[in-house]
Amino acid sequence: MTDMACLRLETRQLRLDWADGESHAFPYIWLRDTDPAGFHPRTGERVFDLTSVPLDLAPRAVRVEGAILVVDWPGDDAASRFDLCWLRENRPGAPRPDPAGVETVAWRGELGAGGVPRARAAEVLQDDAALADWLCRGKAYGLSIIEGLDDDVEAGCAVARRIGFLRETNFGRTFEVVSKPDPNNLAYTSDALPLHTDLTNQELPPGWQFLHCLANEAEGGGSVFCDGVAVAEDLARADPTAFELLASVDIPFRFHDAETDIRARKTVIRRGLDGRVDEICFNAHLADILDIDPAIMPDYYAAYRRLMQMTRDSAYLVTLKLKAGEMVVFDNRRVLHGRAAFDPSTGFRHLRGCYVDRGEFDSRMRVLARAADRAEAA
Amino acid sequence: MTDMACLRLETRQLRLDWADGESHAFPYIWLRDTDPAGFHPRTGERVFDLTSVPLDLAPRAVRVEGAILVVDWPGDDAASRFDLCWLRENRPGAPRPDPAGVETVAWRGELGAGGVPRARAAEVLQDDAALADWLCRGKAYGLSIIEGLDDDVEAGCAVARRIGFLRETNFGRTFEVVSKPDPNNLAYTSDALPLHTDLTNQELPPGWQFLHCLANEAEGGGSVFCDGVAVAEDLARADPTAFELLASVDIPFRFHDAETDIRARKTVIRRGLDGRVDEICFNAHLADILDIDPAIMPDYYAAYRRLMQMTRDSAYLVTLKLKAGEMVVFDNRRVLHGRAAFDPSTGFRHLRGCYVDRGEFDSRMRVLARAADRAEAA
Repeated sequence: MTDMACLRLETRQLRLDWADGESHAFPYIWLRDTDPAGFHPRTGERVFDLTSVPLDLAPRAVRVEGAILVVDWPGDDAASRFDLCWLRENRPGAPRPDPAGVETVAWRGELGAGGVPRARAAEVLQDDAALADWLCRGKAYGLSIIEGLDDDVEAGCAVARRIGFLRETNFGRTFEVVSKPDPNNLAYTSDALPLHTDLTNQELPPGWQFLHCLANEAEGGGSVFCDGVAVAEDLARADPTAFELLASVDIPFRFHDAETDIRARKTVIRRGLDGRVDEICFNAHLADILDIDPAIMPDYYAAYRRLMQMTRDSAYLVTLKLKAGEMVVFDNRRVLHGRAAFDPSTGFRHLRGCYVDRGEFDSRMRVLARAADRAEAA
Repeated sequence: MTDMACLRLETRQLRLDWADGESHAFPYIWLRDTDPAGFHPRTGERVFDLTSVPLDLAPRAVRVEGAILVVDWPGDDAASRFDLCWLRENRPGAPRPDPAGVETVAWRGELGAGGVPRARAAEVLQDDAALADWLCRGKAYGLSIIEGLDDDVEAGCAVARRIGFLRETNFGRTFEVVSKPDPNNLAYTSDALPLHTDLTNQELPPGWQFLHCLANEAEGGGSVFCDGVAVAEDLARADPTAFELLASVDIPFRFHDAETDIRARKTVIRRGLDGRVDEICFNAHLADILDIDPAIMPDYYAAYRRLMQMTRDSAYLVTLKLKAGEMVVFDNRRVLHGRAAFDPSTGFRHLRGCYVDRGEFDSRMRVLARAADRAEAA
C-alpha cells in the first residue's frame, strides 16, 4: 500500500505515485508546515512558525529511507521525516478518519419503541467497551434508552458524566421536568408539548439530552420522538422548494424571563459541510415574531407548517411511556421530542434532565476508540 | 407616527398606509400567528398552533379602535387585537431593535493601552448602570480592563458572574495561566504565545474571556491584543482574494490530550448575517494537519500567512503589562491575544481565567436595558 513507484519534484509540490497506481500531490509548504518535529512533544500543538519560511520554499532533495520520506530543506533548516503510510493517510484533500463519524440511520414510526437502542446503566457506568458500543448505536439513531438506573436524582447525570461535563444553560446544569407553579417554561406545566428541539434561541442549542424518569404515575405524559433528519429528507424529496426555504432563510428565536433575554437567528434545517441535513432547529414556542420579508412570508409559512404537520404525523413518531429507572438519551439537534398532556391529580410525574454537547460526546467516542485500538494491537 | 391614512385588505395580506407616507404589508397568516393572545401569559412562549388554521386564512373584517387594530377572523376564532404602534415597530421585514446591538469600533495599534475602555470592579459589582455602561463600551471595542480587583482568586470570576454563568470547557470552568510542569497546553508554559483566539477546535469557541492578573512580577510576560475585525477588514481591502479564501474555505482544528479529542472545522474569518466580519478563528497551535484540496493549498497558505503576519504587525497591536488587581476582558471570537515570553526565575506570574459566552453577555445587556427603560419612563 505504501510502496512507491515514483517520486517527482514539481514546481510547487512533491508528487508521489504509489505502486497501486494512485498518485498524490504534496505542496512543499504543506510538507514544511506538517513536519512532525514542528509539533510540541507534550501538548501536540503546532509550534512551527509559518512566517519563518518563504511561501515558495522548495526542498534541496527528497529521498526514501525504508518506510520514511526524508525532505532536505535549504539553508540550516533540519530535514523533515515522514512515515510514508501516515503521509498517504493524511494527504491533502483526503478525508481524515474520525472514530466519531458514525453513519446516520434515519428512522420513522415503524422503528417502534422496540427498535430504539437500549443499554444497561451498570454496564455503561463500569465498562468502557459497553460505553463505546452504546454511544455508537445511540449516535446512529440519535436516540437510545438506558435501563436500570438507581432511584436517585443523580443517577442519570452520572451516566451523562461518563461522556463529559454537563452543558450549563440559563435553566441550570440540570433541570426538573415537573409541573410547578409560576413556570417560566411550558415544560414545567402539565400541558401537552408538541414536538420540538430545545433552546433553539441559543447560538449553540444543547446537543445530547438526558431525561431520567424518576416517576411517571400520572395518567398521560407519554414521550414522543421524531427523527428530524428523516422528516427533512422526505420533505426535500416531496417539496424541494419548501425544503430550500427552511434550509436557507434564517428566522429569529427568543426566550426571555425576569433574568434573561437570549436570542439567536437560524435556519430550521441546517446542512452540514457534506450537504446532508445535520441539524433541525424547530420550536414553535421559542420562535420569535417572524420578521422576514413579507414577500416570501406566505411561502415560508407554507413550508414551515408542512414541516410542523410532518412532525406530528404518526408515520414519523415513536412513543415511549418511560418507566421509573429508565432514561431516554437523544440528540436534541436532530431528534424532536414532545409529550402528551398529563393529569397531575392522578399521580406524580418527574423527569430530571441534563445536556452534554456534541463536542464532548464525539470526543469521548474518539478517546474510547484509542483504547479499542490498543486492545486490538496487543 | 401611528396615524393611519388607509387600510386595505389585499388578497393575502393587509396593507397599512400610514399618515407619514410609509406603507407596510402584513400577511394575514402572520397576523394570526402573531396575535398577542397566542402567547403564554407567564412564559411568553407561543402557544398558538399554526396547524389549527388554513394557510389561506383571511379576516372577515378589520377595523381600528383608537390605537388598536382589531382583526375579526372567520368562524369561532376570537378577534386579534394589536397595538398599532407595536405593529408598526414589529412589522414583517423590519429589523428588530436589540439593546445588545452595539456598533463595532474597529481599532488598531494607535489605540494604545490608554485608549482601552476601563471600569472599576467595585462599581461594576454594585451598580447596574455602571455594569451596563461597561458592557456597552467593552462590546464596542471587544476589549476592556477592570481595575481595583481584590487580591482573591475568586475576584475576577465574581465580576464575570455579574454577566452570567461561566462557560465550562475541557480545561474546567476556570483556568490558571501559570508555568507548570507537564503542561497539556502552551499557555501553561513560559513560552511566548503568538496572537490567537482560544479553543478554535470547539464547535462554539468561548465568547468573552476574563484574565485576572494576580501576580506579574516575572521579567517579560506582557499581554498583546489585536482586533481581528480591523485586520480582516484591512485584508479585504488589500487582498480581496485572500480574504475570500479565509472566509469561505473551512479548515480543521483539533485539541487532544489524554482525556479529550475535540475537533471542529471552520473558516478563519466568519461573516455575520449582515455580511460584516463577526468572528475570527485563528490559532496556529490548534490548526490541525491541513486537509484541503492541494490545488488551492498554495493560495490558501499565502492568504493564511498574510493574515498571520498582520496579527504580528505593530500597526495592529496594543500591549498591556497587566498589574496585580487588573483584569483584561475581551471577546475571544473577535480579539486575538498573545504574550511575550517570561522568565519564571525572575518572579511569579499568575493569571486566572474564565469565559462567559456571547449569548449570556448579550442577554445581560438586554435585561439591564429594561431597567434603564423603566427608570427613563418613571
